[in-house]
Amino acid sequence: MTHASRPTLGVGMVGYAFMGRAHSQAWRNTAAFFDLPCTPAMVALAGRSRDQVSAAAERLGWASAETDWRELIRRDDVHVVDICTPGDTHAEIAIAALDAGKHVLCEKPLANTVAEATAMAEAAGRAAANGVRAMVGFNYRRVPALALARGLVLDGRLGTIRHVRAQYLQDWIVDPDFPLVWRLEADKAGSGALGDIGAHIIDAAQYVTGDRLIGVSALLETFIKERPIAQASAGLDATVDGDDRRGRVTVDDAALFAGRMSGGALASFEATRFATGRKNVLRLEINGSAGSLAFDLESMNELSFYDHTEDPRTAGFRRILVTEPSHPYAGAWWPPGHVLGYEHTFTHEVKDFVEAIASGTDPEPSFADGLQVQRVISAVTHSAAHHGAWTAVEGAEDAARAPSPTATTG
Amino acid sequence: MTHASRPTLGVGMVGYAFMGRAHSQAWRNTAAFFDLPCTPAMVALAGRSRDQVSAAAERLGWASAETDWRELIRRDDVHVVDICTPGDTHAEIAIAALDAGKHVLCEKPLANTVAEATAMAEAAGRAAANGVRAMVGFNYRRVPALALARGLVLDGRLGTIRHVRAQYLQDWIVDPDFPLVWRLEADKAGSGALGDIGAHIIDAAQYVTGDRLIGVSALLETFIKERPIAQASAGLDATVDGDDRRGRVTVDDAALFAGRMSGGALASFEATRFATGRKNVLRLEINGSAGSLAFDLESMNELSFYDHTEDPRTAGFRRILVTEPSHPYAGAWWPPGHVLGYEHTFTHEVKDFVEAIASGTDPEPSFADGLQVQRVISAVTHSAAHHGAWTAVEGAEDAARAPSPTATTG
Amino acid sequence: MTHASRPTLGVGMVGYAFMGRAHSQAWRNTAAFFDLPCTPAMVALAGRSRDQVSAAAERLGWASAETDWRELIRRDDVHVVDICTPGDTHAEIAIAALDAGKHVLCEKPLANTVAEATAMAEAAGRAAANGVRAMVGFNYRRVPALALARGLVLDGRLGTIRHVRAQYLQDWIVDPDFPLVWRLEADKAGSGALGDIGAHIIDAAQYVTGDRLIGVSALLETFIKERPIAQASAGLDATVDGDDRRGRVTVDDAALFAGRMSGGALASFEATRFATGRKNVLRLEINGSAGSLAFDLESMNELSFYDHTEDPRTAGFRRILVTEPSHPYAGAWWPPGHVLGYEHTFTHEVKDFVEAIASGTDPEPSFADGLQVQRVISAVTHSAAHHGAWTAVEGAEDAARAPSPTATTG
Amino acid sequence: MTHASRPTLGVGMVGYAFMGRAHSQAWRNTAAFFDLPCTPAMVALAGRSRDQVSAAAERLGWASAETDWRELIRRDDVHVVDICTPGDTHAEIAIAALDAGKHVLCEKPLANTVAEATAMAEAAGRAAANGVRAMVGFNYRRVPALALARGLVLDGRLGTIRHVRAQYLQDWIVDPDFPLVWRLEADKAGSGALGDIGAHIIDAAQYVTGDRLIGVSALLETFIKERPIAQASAGLDATVDGDDRRGRVTVDDAALFAGRMSGGALASFEATRFATGRKNVLRLEINGSAGSLAFDLESMNELSFYDHTEDPRTAGFRRILVTEPSHPYAGAWWPPGHVLGYEHTFTHEVKDFVEAIASGTDPEPSFADGLQVQRVISAVTHSAAHHGAWTAVEGAEDAARAPSPTATTG
Repeated sequence: MTHASRPTLGVGMVGYAFMGRAHSQAWRNTAAFFDLPCTPAMVALAGRSRDQVSAAAERLGWASAETDWRELIRRDDVHVVDICTPGDTHAEIAIAALDAGKHVLCEKPLANTVAEATAMAEAAGRAAANGVRAMVGFNYRRVPALALARGLVLDGRLGTIRHVRAQYLQDWIVDPDFPLVWRLEADKAGSGALGDIGAHIIDAAQYVTGDRLIGVSALLETFIKERPIAQASAGLDATVDGDDRRGRVTVDDAALFAGRMSGGALASFEATRFATGRKNVLRLEINGSAGSLAFDLESMNELSFYDHTEDPRTAGFRRILVTEPSHPYAGAWWPPGHVLGYEHTFTHEVKDFVEAIASGTDPEPSFADGLQVQRVISAVTHSAAHHGAWTAVEGAEDAARAPSPTATTG
Repeated sequence: MTHASRPTLGVGMVGYAFMGRAHSQAWRNTAAFFDLPCTPAMVALAGRSRDQVSAAAERLGWASAETDWRELIRRDDVHVVDICTPGDTHAEIAIAALDAGKHVLCEKPLANTVAEATAMAEAAGRAAANGVRAMVGFNYRRVPALALARGLVLDGRLGTIRHVRAQYLQDWIVDPDFPLVWRLEADKAGSGALGDIGAHIIDAAQYVTGDRLIGVSALLETFIKERPIAQASAGLDATVDGDDRRGRVTVDDAALFAGRMSGGALASFEATRFATGRKNVLRLEINGSAGSLAFDLESMNELSFYDHTEDPRTAGFRRILVTEPSHPYAGAWWPPGHVLGYEHTFTHEVKDFVEAIASGTDPEPSFADGLQVQRVISAVTHSAAHHGAWTAVEGAEDAARAPSPTATTG
Repeated sequence: MTHASRPTLGVGMVGYAFMGRAHSQAWRNTAAFFDLPCTPAMVALAGRSRDQVSAAAERLGWASAETDWRELIRRDDVHVVDICTPGDTHAEIAIAALDAGKHVLCEKPLANTVAEATAMAEAAGRAAANGVRAMVGFNYRRVPALALARGLVLDGRLGTIRHVRAQYLQDWIVDPDFPLVWRLEADKAGSGALGDIGAHIIDAAQYVTGDRLIGVSALLETFIKERPIAQASAGLDATVDGDDRRGRVTVDDAALFAGRMSGGALASFEATRFATGRKNVLRLEINGSAGSLAFDLESMNELSFYDHTEDPRTAGFRRILVTEPSHPYAGAWWPPGHVLGYEHTFTHEVKDFVEAIASGTDPEPSFADGLQVQRVISAVTHSAAHHGAWTAVEGAEDAARAPSPTATTG
Repeated sequence: MTHASRPTLGVGMVGYAFMGRAHSQAWRNTAAFFDLPCTPAMVALAGRSRDQVSAAAERLGWASAETDWRELIRRDDVHVVDICTPGDTHAEIAIAALDAGKHVLCEKPLANTVAEATAMAEAAGRAAANGVRAMVGFNYRRVPALALARGLVLDGRLGTIRHVRAQYLQDWIVDPDFPLVWRLEADKAGSGALGDIGAHIIDAAQYVTGDRLIGVSALLETFIKERPIAQASAGLDATVDGDDRRGRVTVDDAALFAGRMSGGALASFEATRFATGRKNVLRLEINGSAGSLAFDLESMNELSFYDHTEDPRTAGFRRILVTEPSHPYAGAWWPPGHVLGYEHTFTHEVKDFVEAIASGTDPEPSFADGLQVQRVISAVTHSAAHHGAWTAVEGAEDAARAPSPTATTG
């Protein structure tokens, strides 16, 4: 089948900020590297401001612009709706699109509340019955190193998993004068570090291990309680020079929680925007009875693997450069050792999504997966509000397994 | 003052296993590298078995051997008692020695219970009034890199500390057939990973930051509940080939806890003997408003430091090789870049202890410091027995500051 | 100026293998991230096979296909010719294109011989007089970390440069049964590791330091003298199963040379395809009187910098994550810590080339720079053929400065 | 056999500066960790100044002091002479000691000239016939990681060796005002970086590979030609404040050479005291057809090993922490992960030397090995004096294999 003879898949995207730029890059390039069953067409971009959305569409490669996402959904030439807006709008757009028969790719976190996420998962369920697909954008599943990590676990190379250690460390709001942007407001963002980057490590840890978090004991903290009001949030008069009004930060700066996985592992999670000097460190370490894995997103082309079945004389964490033809996704790109970057995760996401649509299978992570992450976030918030009290994750049938006190006394 | 004219400090040591060998190495070598105010003399080694203690004394450089530690304490030529036995004997020996006017260096953890540690700290208080010194052996305070870390915090290079991340990872009991040694029995060891290696990171984190843990929320786990009975524990008939009797493991394999520091930082601690491939990883990372530090004991000559006051163009974690003349302890050894090893921490400990004795000042870490670590351990155990419930550390006056729930909802 | 109002720059490309795919990716995406003065249009792709070039054009985003590069040059809608073919064709295509008034971007090495490169540089000189631009594709100059390195040298942060240490290590032909592909044939590739990857480190070292190699003492080696004849090289009958004919490898497997830089530094270069386990390691280390730099392409988002003016207590190689807005090229992409990959170097190359065309300035590296690298390669080959004899690089006026024997005797 | 019943081995040492301190540490401690066949007794230390040598003896643990090394040799209770003086005195002391029937451990480099080294090797040959042993102190052979590396090569894990890459990088004389110490004077030190640290990497590379350097092409450089005259060199009046006299540096600051190994590998060597920020970096990388090794002395407890027989999906350089019981020397020390330091190399050296003496076997590296390194140094000096001309190493029978010019042309 030549490219020309392949069916076209019309894509409409809502939002064109950070995530919109990353998704556009993926839609623009996937077909050049992967042999897709159908050819994505970048049909339309939706945003509220006519001027801005038109300029963005031109710059990012979208053939047209819409100022109302409802219009986008109505268009016959749009088969896929890609949602790149803040979390408070996900539910409405996604449910409308699915109900209109459009496949939906929705950025993470799936929603700001469990209630919204539940409704979205239900809509995805209804849609699936009609052959309409929904996927949530936990793009780090498509880092080749993490996909390889998942494969090694599936192959039994780690044995029984004992420990999960996950950290997502950033530092972009360390300065107390950094303004009160929408990501620091609970009504728009849902939560702070927890939902933004904590959601990533919850998903990544569950994806790689194949286990689920069954309960947590959590602390949240907001180090800087008030910040300068950002112009965009404050309205017109906020642009006055010398304005020193401050507004309340209504989300967490940092989230820290211990948990237990369904397979019996102890798990430690930390998400923070106050790790000075750590720009985008997503560390994941997993220890099993037969081996261990370690990963750091700042060195995203590498996976560390310790094989406990090796002779101790030559055993050691090996740095696998995940750029070999036999590694997930890597063969489509460059020769070994020619590294990939952040944006490639979205390209891989688009590839998998398009293939799922074409083959009539449900893509992963599903909206149900997104809902489950939302339930973990909810359990974390509940535990933190109750001084770290153990809180089962809703739906974890075996959550009954509360932490078993050991015989140790002090 | 020539060496010959310096007073001699007679040292008697109890125990000659792992710690006894390490301490002997320190007593044997400190005077060759540091200009000590008095000269340590390795007077006597005490142990229960006449043959074994004599052989050990000869091998390790002790001039004589005793089979009863009480005899050691009675000797006039013994001015210092160095306690290297398991934790269940620390209190009795240390209190007797202090009350007899001997300076005491006691291995960590100070004791197996808060009650014992309290009695020891009281004995140390009484002794100090008489010019007798007591010190607990948290030797990692004497890693030059950690001493430098403490110095940088004191100099204000980190600003307000926001995060502490501490892990002590080992893997020596991953195999389920590893035997039930004394370190896995609560009556001898007090606790498992928690008291053995967790105590180290509690002390190290508090030492470097200058802050104290005020409360914790903890999980403990014993992955392997029963193990083969070790010969030494089981008596004569356990040596029969094919013996398959197993005994109950009564301590934790792993300890995981979140906490808050007196200065407002969030803290994450993990101690485990099930981190496959991690032989002796003690990681400490501290993020402050003005900078960050990171350390790994497997690369113990290095300290990573991020200076947030640098121009972002050239800012980055710098790998300080802590072997310069201006670095703590390092100038006494070799030229820059010629690295030190594990045992040097004990040499530095002995140096500081001897200097404190000679100058009539109280050495650190004191028995009170050891007691405080024991209280943290006790709080961890209590929290874990209550499903992670927030537990204040006894004596932390400001422990009233329970975790402040944030506004986040999920 | 909106995108729409900007002039269009028609681009035609010759070749669509590895480099062609990389360049296409750059032409397809640059305008989405950088605010270009004119908008590149991917007008036509040229190749010999109609079917293959058409398929490649469709896949890679080129609007049309040509089977003769001469036709490409004749097209009025082609303003730029991008040459991605093997080295033996560069001179003919580039000179024809320049003489026809087309701007030329030519892959490295510029040519297979000094004679060809000289003719090309002359053509570029003629063209420049007419406002036509030429650039050679040493894409690693556009790694943000190496561009930052250049900036630090220019700012004087390294002081007087004493040492250059450059290695390009790959391992793709370690297996003696790897076939005799065109890159192993002197008539097509010119040389082996030397011209392919050695050219990169010659250019990178000279670019970062601002100095030129003035002379070299070199060794070359071909470890595997014969290899299976590749199907594509052998014609039809080579495809017979069980064919075991071998052909002679006519290029170097590895090149090793010491040299001196115009500024007085000693330099060490090594390029090899036999560094087992090293997939694409381009290491560059530079030591100066005021500081040092280190880089490794496998960790291409990082630059190590040692500032010798720092207090030794806190001095150390700092790992700069070159993803800050103040870093070269980085601000156009993602937030700090979101890393770039190999292909971004081409995107940056296209950006700089397009800007040079629009502003009427000569882009760097120029064809004269490419010629100078070719002269270094020629000196290396000459020295190796004369048992390492010191060989001045043609055109290095100060090459008279032969290695000054020191007073050391042995 | 108990310690008490073992024969005593009386040791006398000449010199007590840097190397003397390191050797003393080894003699003082070896018996505490290794089960030696005889017990070293630190009998006497020799030096020129009565006061200084007596103080050093007391501090370092030597039972007596001598002011003439000839007296040391005459003593009946001295069975071993350990030579820790500058290179210009090695030959005289070593030959006298060997001829007097004393076993000799001599610091590296063996001598300052090939002539001296030849005489020493001859003396060692004569002595060996009488059961007297001689060893040269290339202590890095006793880094456990390098001993393991040697073992892996012997086991065939690297296959045919293609590349050796060795660097020894320091920076202690970067400052032009660093004084003219004896190590910068040819009459005392023989050569500069070449003989001091270059000798180490020559020996290490040959030891690990089992191959010998057969020829070299070299450059030497003295960046700073004159330096302030050090007080010790200048006599009394040099201590006048404001003295600005400078003397000529008569040794190399840096040595750079390419070579070929007897097994066919290409080798690259660099030794420098001008690698700003590199305090004591000894890097060794070896690439073979079946695997690769990498080592850095600043991380001396680690060995990187790449096993090319692994599935590419999980192949990678593994970081072996060389602290396992099955690793060379490591089992005598601490549990896995508890790292060793620089000085342990001397302890291991003493262990091996004592065992060789007791067992009546010739220790390695022998004086003949030391002579061969001296011949390499001489070839390097000769080549550098002839503008990098290829120079065979004396005694390398197969040195006829000059660099084979390849077919590459430029």
